[in-house]
Amino acid sequence: MLTVNAYAATAATDPLVPTAIERRDLGPHDVLIEIKYAGICHSDIHTARGDWGPAAYPLVPGHEIAGIVAEVGAAVTRHAVGDRVGVGCMVDSCRECDNCRQGEEQYCVPGNTLTYGSVGADGEVTQGGYSTHIVVTEDFVVTIPDGIALDVAAPLLCAGITTYSPLRHWGAGPGKQVAVVGLGGLGHMAVKIAHAMGAEVTVLSQSLRKRDDGLRLGADHYHATSDPQTFKTLTRRFDLIVNTVSAPIDVDRHLRLLALDGALVNVGAPAEPMTLNVFSLLAGRRSYAGSMIGGIRETQEMLDFCAEHGIGAEIELIDADRINEAWERVLASDVRYRFVIDAATFTER
Amino acid sequence: MLTVNAYAATAATDPLVPTAIERRDLGPHDVLIEIKYAGICHSDIHTARGDWGPAAYPLVPGHEIAGIVAEVGAAVTRHAVGDRVGVGCMVDSCRECDNCRQGEEQYCVPGNTLTYGSVGADGEVTQGGYSTHIVVTEDFVVTIPDGIALDVAAPLLCAGITTYSPLRHWGAGPGKQVAVVGLGGLGHMAVKIAHAMGAEVTVLSQSLRKRDDGLRLGADHYHATSDPQTFKTLTRRFDLIVNTVSAPIDVDRHLRLLALDGALVNVGAPAEPMTLNVFSLLAGRRSYAGSMIGGIRETQEMLDFCAEHGIGAEIELIDADRINEAWERVLASDVRYRFVIDAATFTER
Repeated sequence: MLTVNAYAATAATDPLVPTAIERRDLGPHDVLIEIKYAGICHSDIHTARGDWGPAAYPLVPGHEIAGIVAEVGAAVTRHAVGDRVGVGCMVDSCRECDNCRQGEEQYCVPGNTLTYGSVGADGEVTQGGYSTHIVVTEDFVVTIPDGIALDVAAPLLCAGITTYSPLRHWGAGPGKQVAVVGLGGLGHMAVKIAHAMGAEVTVLSQSLRKRDDGLRLGADHYHATSDPQTFKTLTRRFDLIVNTVSAPIDVDRHLRLLALDGALVNVGAPAEPMTLNVFSLLAGRRSYAGSMIGGIRETQEMLDFCAEHGIGAEIELIDADRINEAWERVLASDVRYRFVIDAATFTER
Repeated sequence: MLTVNAYAATAATDPLVPTAIERRDLGPHDVLIEIKYAGICHSDIHTARGDWGPAAYPLVPGHEIAGIVAEVGAAVTRHAVGDRVGVGCMVDSCRECDNCRQGEEQYCVPGNTLTYGSVGADGEVTQGGYSTHIVVTEDFVVTIPDGIALDVAAPLLCAGITTYSPLRHWGAGPGKQVAVVGLGGLGHMAVKIAHAMGAEVTVLSQSLRKRDDGLRLGADHYHATSDPQTFKTLTRRFDLIVNTVSAPIDVDRHLRLLALDGALVNVGAPAEPMTLNVFSLLAGRRSYAGSMIGGIRETQEMLDFCAEHGIGAEIELIDADRINEAWERVLASDVRYRFVIDAATFTER
């Protein structure tokens, strides 16, 4: 067992604290990763605070992990010591269900093993990336191409793949009109990736406050959803709307922005139920859909795509002792556009 | 002008009464059809009773029309006197918008001309198929192949195309698991057509009351939605669920019956808003969608498909003086599976 420094939530209501946790001994297919950077995702906060159900404490969040392979198990073939690697939201799955066999481990039927707060194959609760090291089975470790710096690569492991996957699945590309609702951690990646795929990209944000950023990141158009005119001007405009906002939206108003056969795809997960009028779907054979991260093969494809197109996240790099402050700022939407923790600052408690 | 016998609603709350209406003189592209049979669709009742907004009275309903061409305008090329023809929910559209140009006139952007209760190109309110004759522009008249009797063909013009179109669009066929919610006028057509397409078909009905019928019509399985076990047994089973029920359903429970990338498609249009939890969409990249009738080209394709596969509606043929009674029975779901009016019984008032 390896004892490593980490930051953990110890209760739904308390700040995170420095701690030490155990990482398992390397099995034959395991990879020990020296974590260099860990991104802060809004779902870290949801999970730690029990918004999505009771959490097991202590809980070490973090599923946007970039680092270097420090050691490999005897049977590992996919990675070698010194490799630049990443780990996202999953660290294992059943590998046998229909969905796993299609490479869609994010939809594993018996349920995959999440990077933190899940019970792993060894019976232990998994602990995430707010830490100096992690042990992960090689099939759930992806390669970060040389073209992307590790700090801006970390958020690609969740925010990147979560937006890349629906953009790919619903055919974003040349000649397609894509809207991105919300310009936060997920939204800013959606804009960069959709633009790189060749789509015409529109940001729909509450205000025009981040307009300059949006256009700089690759958006062609930027509209405020607080302006009722927006919903008139853009009626039937889009083939695909990726909704990155995890608060309730007016679903009908957004559906009416879709052209024939268009899809409104939620990647954010509001706890509240959504309400819609079926006529909004019937008119134009529209779909309201959801998409959850992406499979391991597709995560690698996304990293290769981002390297090829020079895409990384826009980040604010922080030391570990600023995690609690960063969480408050995430909750206040006060980040452009992702906090990334420098794992060298997880010093001994 | 031609004066013809018809049945009309004169107010939202009153029974239909026999009446006489005017049909326009034939323009160069018009076809005069001697109506032989007219189906009774639930939406006739919704429209006449003002459920979907105020109606203009007198209103002659009917958009499931089968008949014989009696006369053609000078420039008509698609149909000839004596041809067996049908008219569905639309009698015209703008023909210029993107959707019309794709042959999806049902999604005409400025709005198509419905068979009844719409204002046509001549400025007159259209009147539907509960009548002895109708005049329709040739492009919105389809050919009923010899293989289908006119009485069982009539309901194909709405119930048939409304279910054929989403089954085709969402890929029903061999190897696909298709569920049909509700075994009424639409549902029984969905079962026949999905079966003929080669899909494995399951009926989800409130009770097992119509089970024998469902299996006879082509269903492989039949489950009662009143039995909670149904929703456990069938979890993640279906690639496509066609919901023909126009009352609210528990959307989440039905979404959870979908396999990866599955779609729940409403063809019924409940007036009440629907509520769902986004997690039901996220888990399995599921879609909730809507589909509205079908285009003219696809309506012809559907008729050809039905002729090839020996498919007609299951009907109860009635005389015109039983229309009001039939409407009450439709509202009570007491019809197996479509009332069709014998147009020879629209006698002079």
